[in-house]
Amino acid sequence: MSSGTLLYAQSGGVTAVINATASAVIQTARAHKIKVLAARNGILGALREDLIDTSKEPIAAIRALTHTPGGAFGSCRFKLKSLDEDRAKYERLLDVLRAHDVRWFLYNGGNDSADTALKMSKLATEFDYPLACIGVPKTIDNDLALTDCSPGFGSAAKYTAVSVREAALDVAAMADTSTKVFVYEAMGRHAGWLAASAGLAGHGPDEAPHLILFPERPFDEADFFARVKAVVERVGYCVVVASEGIQTADGSFVADAGGGVDSFGHSQLGGVASHLAGRVQHVLGYKVHWALPDYLQRSARHLASKTDLEHAQAVGKAAVEFALAGMNSVMPVIVRTSDAPYRWKIEAAPLSKIANREKKLPAGFLRRDGYSITEKARTYLEPLIRGEAPPPYGNDGLPKYVTLKNVPVARKLERWSEE
Amino acid sequence: MSSGTLLYAQSGGVTAVINATASAVIQTARAHKIKVLAARNGILGALREDLIDTSKEPIAAIRALTHTPGGAFGSCRFKLKSLDEDRAKYERLLDVLRAHDVRWFLYNGGNDSADTALKMSKLATEFDYPLACIGVPKTIDNDLALTDCSPGFGSAAKYTAVSVREAALDVAAMADTSTKVFVYEAMGRHAGWLAASAGLAGHGPDEAPHLILFPERPFDEADFFARVKAVVERVGYCVVVASEGIQTADGSFVADAGGGVDSFGHSQLGGVASHLAGRVQHVLGYKVHWALPDYLQRSARHLASKTDLEHAQAVGKAAVEFALAGMNSVMPVIVRTSDAPYRWKIEAAPLSKIANREKKLPAGFLRRDGYSITEKARTYLEPLIRGEAPPPYGNDGLPKYVTLKNVPVARKLERWSEE
Repeated sequence: MSSGTLLYAQSGGVTAVINATASAVIQTARAHKIKVLAARNGILGALREDLIDTSKEPIAAIRALTHTPGGAFGSCRFKLKSLDEDRAKYERLLDVLRAHDVRWFLYNGGNDSADTALKMSKLATEFDYPLACIGVPKTIDNDLALTDCSPGFGSAAKYTAVSVREAALDVAAMADTSTKVFVYEAMGRHAGWLAASAGLAGHGPDEAPHLILFPERPFDEADFFARVKAVVERVGYCVVVASEGIQTADGSFVADAGGGVDSFGHSQLGGVASHLAGRVQHVLGYKVHWALPDYLQRSARHLASKTDLEHAQAVGKAAVEFALAGMNSVMPVIVRTSDAPYRWKIEAAPLSKIANREKKLPAGFLRRDGYSITEKARTYLEPLIRGEAPPPYGNDGLPKYVTLKNVPVARKLERWSEE
Repeated sequence: MSSGTLLYAQSGGVTAVINATASAVIQTARAHKIKVLAARNGILGALREDLIDTSKEPIAAIRALTHTPGGAFGSCRFKLKSLDEDRAKYERLLDVLRAHDVRWFLYNGGNDSADTALKMSKLATEFDYPLACIGVPKTIDNDLALTDCSPGFGSAAKYTAVSVREAALDVAAMADTSTKVFVYEAMGRHAGWLAASAGLAGHGPDEAPHLILFPERPFDEADFFARVKAVVERVGYCVVVASEGIQTADGSFVADAGGGVDSFGHSQLGGVASHLAGRVQHVLGYKVHWALPDYLQRSARHLASKTDLEHAQAVGKAAVEFALAGMNSVMPVIVRTSDAPYRWKIEAAPLSKIANREKKLPAGFLRRDGYSITEKARTYLEPLIRGEAPPPYGNDGLPKYVTLKNVPVARKLERWSEE
């Protein structure tokens, strides 16, 4: 083993393929004889000195992470504030990293996590501690800046498009005497990337989804009702995909069923589909069904996109290579070099240009009326859901997902007292 | 072509594999040189003389039905009443069958459809019209009498078990700082078969799902809260699977979000998960997420069970063979001859013993406390979700589902005027 360890942690909402990134990180580091520690529950594990020794896991388990959804080491929703406000926490982190001879810190998350990695890097520089901080991209929301797409998104997008296509066949069969309107709620607080991916399920105005509601466009209920009615009268039924974050023109969320805010300060949403379904049934009189896949859409490893899986593995491998090459405060991002055939490569991008930014759907991806996607969007989205990468199944009919032993590393410091 | 045609129709909620049954019916009939007509939208198509000539479909399209969810000819929720009450309708049906020389009527549905097929058979006998009426089993609810299981159930059960296992991995990763309780709502008005199948996702008290709520047991909110709290404190999080039809001891449904009744007179449910999630969050203070897969669970052909698919094909083939062998008022049912190795065969069962009956979960399938399944249930359920049968995928990343041409047969009668 070389001197120094690599610390890896997962942050924010997990995805169907974040463990594939973890697997690539660990396998690449092992190939370079670098020991990998993992922080349990993201940055909190680092603060608590609750670290996991991944060298205790057999290679078969590490390989099985490639096809296991969830977050194998635990994730967290915990955002560090500015260096000034949370200085004690950052210094504690540095103490923990130093105590375990961590020279490379890889934080696998979204734009908030990129911010944390960036600040860690600044602090290390200030204290003259040799630490490479690398952000590793992950989010089903696909809202990370600079990268062409975010690992995790392609699989959630594939789940969305396939589910909408399948449910639409069900609705089409039942519409004559039963359900005429079906509403599918897609995740996406401020950016309608997953709602847009539902558009891949059909072609032309008569194929489902007939109406997509994006957070990028104000929701106008009267206009929506008129369109639902027109589709039902023309096609016989109407499949609606609604992004959880749609808002009316005055900026209020259409449904705020969950209430409150999470620890990142984001509103907790949910219930848009149920709200719309109730309104459509009440106002238009149609029988309505709705679906809220919730976590199913981001954990459906059984329906992962092969492209997405390859991205997830590539960013993990590149993150280690960048770190070992002495790079700092960067994130491996996916750069698209060709649409057809789809080609991509990994490059390093500065965390400072990614942290806390949010990439929305480009205006050119939304049809002029705001209820569907354009060919440009389709060209962008389609390669991301291409290819299948099913997990192995057992004789019990279930995917063979792995649970790691997660052997803790002996503590070297006092307990963290600030929780 | 032999003299006489075979009329096939789909009824009630569709499944991931009902079209596989249709495919087997058509392929078997073609092999016997029998022309197959399909009624559009179930029995309504027969009443309306809205018939489809399946001989206009190329064999490749008929084969592709095997991997296409939904109901290729349309289904319906429309129940005929007793022969006395709906005599005019039954006589109209007989007129339509006679006009198109239908000698074999195959009705693919649940217990209500078995009742319709049975009555049609009685009327034909009364009018001395030579007609074989065969019920063909289908329902994700698995509540059909006599048959060991119902085609469509195994795939919905596999979807349920896989989805719960996947979502549970997500919750486990997030529980430290975010969601502690996850509620998954499974279909099933009066019988908890799908909720029970979620039990296959884990083993022992600490693996998800931790609590299953069955319609067969009265829901006691205080007891439920105490158990949720105990699981969260012991495991760190709690995954709950709730059957849509759970009721309190006084027989009232826990949530009746949809309101009203469908045309079969069944209450329209939905919203149990959202209700429970709200209550748990309010009373116990845990952050809660919930999922309502709705139609996704019965149309997820991408995750079909191979066993279920084989059942669906076998009942379709047998239905035609029974009809051609001169049998009447029967249904091909699945008879289990061995659990391990799992073996089964098809036998004929009288419609009179299936019509309008509802098979609930045997008491021996529920753990004594009513919150999980027994080993006996596991032994029964596991073979039904065993094996994968994925559809072919296109280069667009989506399953290649077929849409039939559904060429109408020329009408020979006056329009049906009673709608």
